Amino acid sequence: MKRYPGYQRKPFYYETDKMGIIHHSNYIRWFEEARVDLLEFLDYPFEKIEEIGVMVPVLAVSSTYKEMVRFGDEIIIHPTISKYTGTRLNFEYQIISQATGAVATVGTSDHCFMSSETSRLIHLKRQHPELHELFMSYYTLKTDEDAE
Amino acid sequence: MKRYPGYQRKPFYYETDKMGIIHHSNYIRWFEEARVDLLEFLDYPFEKIEEIGVMVPVLAVSSTYKEMVRFGDEIIIHPTISKYTGTRLNFEYQIISQATGAVATVGTSDHCFMSSETSRLIHLKRQHPELHELFMSYYTLKTDEDAE
Amino acid sequence: MKRYPGYQRKPFYYETDKMGIIHHSNYIRWFEEARVDLLEFLDYPFEKIEEIGVMVPVLAVSSTYKEMVRFGDEIIIHPTISKYTGTRLNFEYQIISQATGAVATVGTSDHCFMSSETSRLIHLKRQHPELHELFMSYYTLKTDEDAE
Amino acid sequence: MKRYPGYQRKPFYYETDKMGIIHHSNYIRWFEEARVDLLEFLDYPFEKIEEIGVMVPVLAVSSTYKEMVRFGDEIIIHPTISKYTGTRLNFEYQIISQATGAVATVGTSDHCFMSSETSRLIHLKRQHPELHELFMSYYTLKTDEDAE
Repeated sequence: MKRYPGYQRKPFYYETDKMGIIHHSNYIRWFEEARVDLLEFLDYPFEKIEEIGVMVPVLAVSSTYKEMVRFGDEIIIHPTISKYTGTRLNFEYQIISQATGAVATVGTSDHCFMSSETSRLIHLKRQHPELHELFMSYYTLKTDEDAE
Repeated sequence: MKRYPGYQRKPFYYETDKMGIIHHSNYIRWFEEARVDLLEFLDYPFEKIEEIGVMVPVLAVSSTYKEMVRFGDEIIIHPTISKYTGTRLNFEYQIISQATGAVATVGTSDHCFMSSETSRLIHLKRQHPELHELFMSYYTLKTDEDAE
Repeated sequence: MKRYPGYQRKPFYYETDKMGIIHHSNYIRWFEEARVDLLEFLDYPFEKIEEIGVMVPVLAVSSTYKEMVRFGDEIIIHPTISKYTGTRLNFEYQIISQATGAVATVGTSDHCFMSSETSRLIHLKRQHPELHELFMSYYTLKTDEDAE
Repeated sequence: MKRYPGYQRKPFYYETDKMGIIHHSNYIRWFEEARVDLLEFLDYPFEKIEEIGVMVPVLAVSSTYKEMVRFGDEIIIHPTISKYTGTRLNFEYQIISQATGAVATVGTSDHCFMSSETSRLIHLKRQHPELHELFMSYYTLKTDEDAE
């Protein structure tokens, strides 16, 4: 499995606020963009997940701001799967400034899987084994790297 | 029919941009808020329109900015129905500064009616006469006032 | 000191997403709206804080989603000061469904105080004692209630 | 002068609404993204314009929706300068579906130039001739192509 290089992004002008920085709420949206980009990289785009009837609601998010990001900066977002159990999927994010390499923001998001038809929770392993394998192998890859 | 007093709104901090003013894209959203508020005032909230299977997509919008709006300002938005034909519904908007009474922004939005089931265009008069009457009477009210 | 009754809010249509619920990122914005509304209730609106040269940047946010909020729901947001030290200000939030009384979402936000002129951290007690007193008395009020 | 290839964009999940399409207000933001991208292509990024003390406020916007854009679609936005006078700058936009080549949306935005120091209108030709030349040459290029 290829290593995901991260999601490159330039802040948009409409994401700034009157303090002259990127409004803090946008980072939560950038995390979602990075998840979607990662899934596309893994050849299982989010629209395909929705097509097979799986919703991936957000149960919790958090974000800690270390350095301000400004319009004109370039950032790269690194999402990693911090936990995957077949019924739960947690991400961690690092937002890195391309200019300085500094970690501007760290964050998390926790998810479950729901059937869009029945609105009931889904066990991916049983009901969508190919998607389960995908998350599992990406999760394991990360764990292996941590172990090295 | 009671006269709609307008939709009062304070700009939110996250709607500002680094020029220190409200970002222009938000006015398009305020127009929608004002439409929704008007419908609620008319005792036919938008969620009820959706429940009976009617979607009201936006065909066009425009906005002309005369005075900047800032965080801390209070505004009032006056939506009026500028055209209603049973298949088309057009609004005009005025955004008024509560402090000065000046018109800060004017805008428009054009809509049609679609079935959420079939995605086909709907003639309100035939298919939802009670909703047709509502728009017609509010539209006529406005026309009568203009004629005075 | 009067008790703050909470910030009432109806979700906007543009805050929904294709899952048919309010997109999770908007709750972070609602928390900000509630903070601003609380400060206005306390007769020290946020624009006045900015006028005296104080910025209140966000250091961290979190949000845990317990029940989905939908367009047409009415909610009330209760912000409380969970910590105040003169240099740090932390809030906790509860988003309550008006229809059911259920807690839909809980969240937090952590803040510091910065001079908009020098971009340096501010000790409110020394530099803006009237603002210090305000936060302290509201914080203490909450603590007293917890103790009862 | 190289020809600008257009601004490629995938809609974000948080830009969808409960009709399952991209909320119409986002197109106004995409127009801004395309302007910013064009300026970067022309080697005069918007942050540089701001650094020399020039603000480019939006006087008016419009957008006409021909085909719905959905999450999973890929679009390309073509901004062109429809008018440039040294004091006024107008853009036209076409949003093209990459899959079908169809024009999904057309729009406009009108701008002036303001000094960020004095908040007064600026004549670019006199005050910032290098920026004037840039807009003029790009505007003329477009006009020449139209004439062919």
